Amino acid sequence: MTILTALRLCAAAALALAICGIPATAQMQFQNHLMPQPAEMSVASGALALNSTFAVEVSGVSSARLTDAIDRAVRRIEMDTGLRHAGRGVAGTTRLIVKVEHPSAPVQSLDEDESYSLTVTSSVAEIDAPNDLGAIHGLETLIQLVQPNGSGYVIPAVTIHDTPRFRWRGLMVDCGRHFEPVAVIERTLDGMAAVKLNVFHWHLTEDQGFRMQSHIYPKLTAKGSDDLFYTQQDARDIVAYARARGIRVVPEFEMPGHSTAWLVAYPELGSGNTPTEIRREFGVSEYAIDPTRDATYAFIGRFLTEMATIFPDAYVHIGGDETPAPDWKTNPRILAFMKAHNLKDNDALQAYFNTRVLKIISSLHKHMMGWDEVLTPGLPKDVVVQSWRGEASLFKGAKLGYEGVLSAPYYLDGMRPAGVHYLADPLPSTSDLTADERKLILGGEVCMWGEHIYARTIDSRIWPRTAAIAERFWSPESVRDVDDMYRRLVPTSIELESLGLTHLESEDAGLRELAGTEDIDALRTVASVLEPVSFGERAQTQHTDQLTALDSFVDAVRPDPPSRQWFALAVKRLLADPSGDAADRIAIAAWFTHLSDAVPAARRQMLASPRLTEVSTRADQLQQLTAMGQQTLQCLSGVQKAPSGWKAKQMETLDEVGKPSALVRFVFLPEMSDLVKAVPE
Amino acid sequence: MTILTALRLCAAAALALAICGIPATAQMQFQNHLMPQPAEMSVASGALALNSTFAVEVSGVSSARLTDAIDRAVRRIEMDTGLRHAGRGVAGTTRLIVKVEHPSAPVQSLDEDESYSLTVTSSVAEIDAPNDLGAIHGLETLIQLVQPNGSGYVIPAVTIHDTPRFRWRGLMVDCGRHFEPVAVIERTLDGMAAVKLNVFHWHLTEDQGFRMQSHIYPKLTAKGSDDLFYTQQDARDIVAYARARGIRVVPEFEMPGHSTAWLVAYPELGSGNTPTEIRREFGVSEYAIDPTRDATYAFIGRFLTEMATIFPDAYVHIGGDETPAPDWKTNPRILAFMKAHNLKDNDALQAYFNTRVLKIISSLHKHMMGWDEVLTPGLPKDVVVQSWRGEASLFKGAKLGYEGVLSAPYYLDGMRPAGVHYLADPLPSTSDLTADERKLILGGEVCMWGEHIYARTIDSRIWPRTAAIAERFWSPESVRDVDDMYRRLVPTSIELESLGLTHLESEDAGLRELAGTEDIDALRTVASVLEPVSFGERAQTQHTDQLTALDSFVDAVRPDPPSRQWFALAVKRLLADPSGDAADRIAIAAWFTHLSDAVPAARRQMLASPRLTEVSTRADQLQQLTAMGQQTLQCLSGVQKAPSGWKAKQMETLDEVGKPSALVRFVFLPEMSDLVKAVPE
Repeated sequence: MTILTALRLCAAAALALAICGIPATAQMQFQNHLMPQPAEMSVASGALALNSTFAVEVSGVSSARLTDAIDRAVRRIEMDTGLRHAGRGVAGTTRLIVKVEHPSAPVQSLDEDESYSLTVTSSVAEIDAPNDLGAIHGLETLIQLVQPNGSGYVIPAVTIHDTPRFRWRGLMVDCGRHFEPVAVIERTLDGMAAVKLNVFHWHLTEDQGFRMQSHIYPKLTAKGSDDLFYTQQDARDIVAYARARGIRVVPEFEMPGHSTAWLVAYPELGSGNTPTEIRREFGVSEYAIDPTRDATYAFIGRFLTEMATIFPDAYVHIGGDETPAPDWKTNPRILAFMKAHNLKDNDALQAYFNTRVLKIISSLHKHMMGWDEVLTPGLPKDVVVQSWRGEASLFKGAKLGYEGVLSAPYYLDGMRPAGVHYLADPLPSTSDLTADERKLILGGEVCMWGEHIYARTIDSRIWPRTAAIAERFWSPESVRDVDDMYRRLVPTSIELESLGLTHLESEDAGLRELAGTEDIDALRTVASVLEPVSFGERAQTQHTDQLTALDSFVDAVRPDPPSRQWFALAVKRLLADPSGDAADRIAIAAWFTHLSDAVPAARRQMLASPRLTEVSTRADQLQQLTAMGQQTLQCLSGVQKAPSGWKAKQMETLDEVGKPSALVRFVFLPEMSDLVKAVPE
Repeated sequence: MTILTALRLCAAAALALAICGIPATAQMQFQNHLMPQPAEMSVASGALALNSTFAVEVSGVSSARLTDAIDRAVRRIEMDTGLRHAGRGVAGTTRLIVKVEHPSAPVQSLDEDESYSLTVTSSVAEIDAPNDLGAIHGLETLIQLVQPNGSGYVIPAVTIHDTPRFRWRGLMVDCGRHFEPVAVIERTLDGMAAVKLNVFHWHLTEDQGFRMQSHIYPKLTAKGSDDLFYTQQDARDIVAYARARGIRVVPEFEMPGHSTAWLVAYPELGSGNTPTEIRREFGVSEYAIDPTRDATYAFIGRFLTEMATIFPDAYVHIGGDETPAPDWKTNPRILAFMKAHNLKDNDALQAYFNTRVLKIISSLHKHMMGWDEVLTPGLPKDVVVQSWRGEASLFKGAKLGYEGVLSAPYYLDGMRPAGVHYLADPLPSTSDLTADERKLILGGEVCMWGEHIYARTIDSRIWPRTAAIAERFWSPESVRDVDDMYRRLVPTSIELESLGLTHLESEDAGLRELAGTEDIDALRTVASVLEPVSFGERAQTQHTDQLTALDSFVDAVRPDPPSRQWFALAVKRLLADPSGDAADRIAIAAWFTHLSDAVPAARRQMLASPRLTEVSTRADQLQQLTAMGQQTLQCLSGVQKAPSGWKAKQMETLDEVGKPSALVRFVFLPEMSDLVKAVPE
């Protein structure tokens, strides 16, 4: 259960909201907060006022999934508007009609129609969809349309015809390196549904932990999980939770590499050297499953058959990446096998392994998916390639006839801004693929790797940036105005928080814990312009492993905080008209003052808390930066003239504060640099 | 799983933390943050520095419960200090020794010894306890002792001999009126363990919902729960989770009143009129279970026998409160039964019912507990009376020979300050009970009723106030310095947050949702001096029921915010020396300015959000109050003289702003009034 699992109020039919508001006025301004943007939308005048009895009718085909989704949607509208149920079964003067043509497939397929139409007039909001799945998406759009108007709330009059651009719109979460509790998975699924993602790729095994219970092979979790794993019931619950929200669950069981946890439990699967305990270090392990023994495939076959009783999806991900497997080059038995089967190197042996595992998966009437290393000569065509080492492997795969999913530009642990991810397109119109090859690009997947996250911090790493990427996967290619995306990301982020995601509140919680006080105004202000460094930089600097306490300042701050976009926009406008744009000059100056005022108190707290002490350097630098900023504004407005050499000195300072320190970096340096450069000298 | 469920790292023996700090300096100042305060403590000089390998040894009797508790404690120390595991099985130069004399009882009893000793020197922290339970309490104390020192963390040298004052230290949570997800219960148990509460009283049935699954009577949840209930597995998991933390689980199944949900499912249990659906309104229902039919007792017997397989505790709570049962006065069959059994009125009939249910409970080798209405003539002595209608019933019960638990002064929904709850003693030394009667007072229970809470808001209603009450139940009667309690409540509250409780972050989350923006600095400032009105005032004003959306400003703000105590202390000091205490005068003036500066922006946001609009009155009043405050300070310092009639006018204003509005009230009016009254006229 998550906090927004709704009271189940309407068994199937009608449901009413109380009189609480005031009719929509003619002056209403449509606020386009939709994320993802629909394929087609036209806005009419007027709106449906949520201020009178509002009844829900399911017309056409009904199902428990649909009525549950409607219950949840109505409950969220209630929570968002403060309206409350007046009663049930009351025929309303305004209505939501949900009309579905035929039942959904029992297991959601890649090709299931996800389209819907939504028409809102002053008296009726109607969702029409070929099946539940489209209607579920339509309900999310409906919720996003609700906006205040005067003293009440309305749904503006619109006509929407919507369908996704890509069939595969995924989020991968690595629960191997750090376990994530069921409640985290559930709220993640809530967030995914809100932005119309449809694949939860569940990375369940790693060198650092085997997280899925097997009854046939109980040692996998008994020896390979530190007792942190999902029971089969947990997994079934999550699959059901996802299905209720129109999301497929694709499980990943890493083989033959990233398999330390398998081998700790069942050393007989190993290629030579076998581990005695799960790996605490991150990075690539040398252990690998032995591809040469029939017993290996018997084991994998029984295991995947068991997993097929839990995961109904037509796809199984076998990982397949990062398998140096030195034992394959030295174990005489393996070398003999390779010779006998004419397998010239490790790649060929892994291709042999993949082919045999593919047979198992095919026998289960499923398709195989793997990271792009699986793309070796001789790989059968019925394998989906997930591209993580750049777009090139995706297009290469397509040209060879393989279906593919793009992940390379969507690695959240790079801590890049939403806008950067947003502009990365899985299939740009400029690509040289043929029409048939283009069809092989199924979509994209956001990746949340687990080295540096746990339940408290995962949300701020995933959200809201993933919402921007979700729009890339759903909306037409032409929707790529970064500033407009950021504008809509604000209400989307709040909506995600109201679903129970903790991406906004976790920063303050972390700061309070680090400072040992509730009085964190100053610290919060300093933190507002800092973000975590990339995974790689942190791993190399801090030498993190699975046992590192993820409770430092870098864990509290979030990537791409709103200050970045605010400042970037203000600077862009100011530089377009440096002497004329007084409003932005004043706003920026006030912002620098606000930051600068916070430094002394924040610095005191940093020095008093051993875990914050190293951040005091950043506080000192912020003081420098704000002083630089104020001078720059004065120079730009002509109040002051920059002395000779001033600019070079500022650029030196910017270089200095851009260097690594305290595992966090300032988010506004490029625009500061633009400001300084604009100063006449 | 909760977010702090630890990596299970030490199977039984040794565990080490990495070199990370600097030795404790001689200047270290002991910070007493302990809550509850121990029975006896002496502080020595020096400290154990958490800056070198720190190994854990379990000496004496070990158990999985103990080693799990040690794992969790070490993980929390790691998270609190940023230290990380260097390895396992390493013999450290500093050690934590946990020495337990004998195994704990398989089911924790009321009389199980909870004592422990904790001795910390510069090289060893040793916990000695007769059993696991005491050691678990000792570990919580150990965690609370960790404090920063210079650039590292230490555990100060102390000797503690600790044992609770009362055996029954409970928290009741009503999951009937609103369901609380398992994750909420788990984090609540984490918080309870941190402050050494030992009874989770789980209110599982209400007119508004039957929350516990029965396989024998499946309709109880099928018809009586809106599908929001705990499976038997959920309940077993929660019992195990609680036991791991030294907490008993006492389930409550309300009968014969507050039983609408039973009767919706099994109308044959009713006394005449029976409901067709669970009750949405709050307050007292007229439906009641029929006490006159043998079938009733057969049903209850089978049900409680089933529940006994889930809840091992020796106590079962049967509710028993608020049963007007008009049907008992009119149903001819019931009237005939009463006549035949010489039962003169409803009270007598309920006493008959209680006696028969007691027989069932006794046959299960358990004790019965009930709200104080059960205390009627003829009630057998083996019933524990929970006093909710004032201390009088507790003492009356004791004089009649009944054991009792006090709840009346610990109702959290009254939204009273922690300090008020804190001073209410279950057994003041001034009481006129005899020594034997005093032994019958088992302790106290905090009550969290469920009308106006759900997963997002429950924590801020329970915490941190419950920590103060937990100290009342544990520490010696003489520990009652309210100001010192509030001082310690700050770090305790942060500790509770680090355990995963959301009492601090939920306010901002609520404000963001209401305002539709992340920019809530001004709103947060205004909210910092407002708190929810009492349950009763809200219920009467808003006519709340189970379907009311609990997502208004009143839901976001928290009871007894820190501003109350801060202002009270500052005013107390200032009034002790109005002309001399410049520091407090300046601080108070700055605070008024800070509040006043926030009003315009907060007011704009309130007027833009329909759900915040009504709060704008409070913003306007805050502006008046801060102006009054500044004038008052000027008058007190002699800078200005109050014109004639000024004081009376201010008192009028204070009366006015003290009136109900927007379901929230200002927290600093009494002290404002003190300030105004102190102005010479």
